[in-house]
Amino acid sequence: MTRITMIGAGVMGTALMFPAADNGHEIKLVGTHLDEAIIKRLQQDRYHLRLQRTIPSNITPYQHTDLAEAMRDAEIIGIGVNSRGVHWAAEHIGPHLQEGQIIIMVTKGMESSPSGELVILPDVLRSLLPANIRDQVRYAAIGGPSIAGELAARRHTSVVFTSRDAEVLPILQSVFATSYYHVWSSTDIIGVEVCVAMKNPYALAVGLAAGVVEAENPPDVAGAKMHNYAAAIFAQGLAETAFLVQHLGGNLQTVFSLPGAGDLYVTTQGGRNSRMGRLLGMGKRYSDAVEEMPNETIEGVDAVVAIAPAIEQMITAGQIAADALPLLRSLHRILTRGENVDFDFDSFFNKLSFNPPIRTEDNER
Amino acid sequence: MTRITMIGAGVMGTALMFPAADNGHEIKLVGTHLDEAIIKRLQQDRYHLRLQRTIPSNITPYQHTDLAEAMRDAEIIGIGVNSRGVHWAAEHIGPHLQEGQIIIMVTKGMESSPSGELVILPDVLRSLLPANIRDQVRYAAIGGPSIAGELAARRHTSVVFTSRDAEVLPILQSVFATSYYHVWSSTDIIGVEVCVAMKNPYALAVGLAAGVVEAENPPDVAGAKMHNYAAAIFAQGLAETAFLVQHLGGNLQTVFSLPGAGDLYVTTQGGRNSRMGRLLGMGKRYSDAVEEMPNETIEGVDAVVAIAPAIEQMITAGQIAADALPLLRSLHRILTRGENVDFDFDSFFNKLSFNPPIRTEDNER
Repeated sequence: MTRITMIGAGVMGTALMFPAADNGHEIKLVGTHLDEAIIKRLQQDRYHLRLQRTIPSNITPYQHTDLAEAMRDAEIIGIGVNSRGVHWAAEHIGPHLQEGQIIIMVTKGMESSPSGELVILPDVLRSLLPANIRDQVRYAAIGGPSIAGELAARRHTSVVFTSRDAEVLPILQSVFATSYYHVWSSTDIIGVEVCVAMKNPYALAVGLAAGVVEAENPPDVAGAKMHNYAAAIFAQGLAETAFLVQHLGGNLQTVFSLPGAGDLYVTTQGGRNSRMGRLLGMGKRYSDAVEEMPNETIEGVDAVVAIAPAIEQMITAGQIAADALPLLRSLHRILTRGENVDFDFDSFFNKLSFNPPIRTEDNER
Repeated sequence: MTRITMIGAGVMGTALMFPAADNGHEIKLVGTHLDEAIIKRLQQDRYHLRLQRTIPSNITPYQHTDLAEAMRDAEIIGIGVNSRGVHWAAEHIGPHLQEGQIIIMVTKGMESSPSGELVILPDVLRSLLPANIRDQVRYAAIGGPSIAGELAARRHTSVVFTSRDAEVLPILQSVFATSYYHVWSSTDIIGVEVCVAMKNPYALAVGLAAGVVEAENPPDVAGAKMHNYAAAIFAQGLAETAFLVQHLGGNLQTVFSLPGAGDLYVTTQGGRNSRMGRLLGMGKRYSDAVEEMPNETIEGVDAVVAIAPAIEQMITAGQIAADALPLLRSLHRILTRGENVDFDFDSFFNKLSFNPPIRTEDNER
């Protein structure tokens, strides 16, 4: 029986606690300052307002004001805040961490360091913790297709737990694995974290196709879909992810399996990234599109904004080629400079062993 | 101006002729014996019954009885029959091939040779042609997300042309590339052909999830989707494709880009494979499910049946591990032995650098 404290009562962190609860562990779920209403309702009747489900009885909800008490003597600390909340989390858990605790992060994303490096979020967290504790705890993360509502419904869900510390992985697998929550493990934390960070922007990009065809005037009914367009973007997103993984020292196998292809696939099946993509594809400027989705975190947008500085610095410093990430950089311009959605497909797939398209004069009739 | 003859007037072969027609080339479209009604209507008013679109005027339709005339002096021969039609095609074009012609195949699939090898369809075709011509012509194929109706609607479509003969590739690219048809080239014909052959069975497998959740009784409304399930199968399909590509000597880059991930993605966006997958996922036996889709070629089924003998022989001969392709072999049992859809997810992802799931006793409440 293991004591687990999850920081952040959003859907993903809460859902992760279901298999651990089913395995009989003792779980404390601590909301952030943004989760006050969620925790209040949980304390009344254990109903989670956003998961729309009752949580197991061995998960005890706590308000953020009781964080210290909730963290005391936990063996595993889960971090379930969104990517913008990592700094808040580090500041608030730092004083209460105890030596030997295992931190497992569900938060997806990366950041640009001031020196122009891409930093995975577990390393960001570590860098923000007090010096006297940051190397006395161990860090892990999760990647793979895991929509929260489905996991909480105990649907078959397959993920990879990752850590540089190979010893923590079987411990975590034992705590969380069930007949429906299938957990592989890997020490390729770079590969996993790059994949799960990039799935959001690339899923947003895949979502553009639906908007482009909707905005078409007049509509072409017989050719009414643009799946070829979306699929080429899916493939370029995965290829750019592979490029980044290799550049940062991760393992290619991670890319064409669960954390890469699987997580990107699930993220294209609807959700906020896809909705924003559709609005942009229809021709709306980002500043207008975001007004149609008020108060919603769109991780794809946040990720592009967070990593663009490092990408640009790496290009300036000649560490990566200027033509290496055409999809990502187009997306950045669409989001931040109001550029139209008009991909130069011929600029894609240029870092693989393919010969590029021949641009020909077009004799269309 | 290039003379092109496409054998087979199905949607895919016909759609491929649109960009070539837009580039001003002279095209003859020859139906098979199965295309008589299609050709008859095309000859009346150039309307293609299945593409639901008028074909360009520089594409001339021919009945199969005029095959010899249609092939005479063609520079490029397209093969657009389905996978079962390759033997028919070889038999009928063999007597009429001329030295120097370039054969480009859109047909997807592989076959098992009597000696237990997996053979890509261009090599199958070559082996069936008369000895005096088979090495006097050149062979190419196509991979990548290219739904026929969208290509014929001149939607952005991105593909890879492939051949062992690097010299034919720029020729083909020049003939077919347009502002909407983006064509890369690669000499990794093994990688491309394995990817496009396997996309059909694995897309069918992804389609099972929709059926499994539909058949659920009582339905769980809050967790009403099974995208995690489908995405894990997507990832396993791509991982098994990578395994086969590597085993057969192809290039991994092909897998996580257009022909692999891109083509698999597009094939999961609806279509016959997905429909069959859903019926099987609902619990129907294959023999019953196929009655709900009469007279339809389901390439995913045909591919599994065609390659299973070679897979089994390779395992028996110890060339590949018995646990190497759990998804494909489950699918084979579902299709041919009426096995229920009940994947052992923990057996997946075992040929990557992941540590396998720990199977734990489940304390579900």
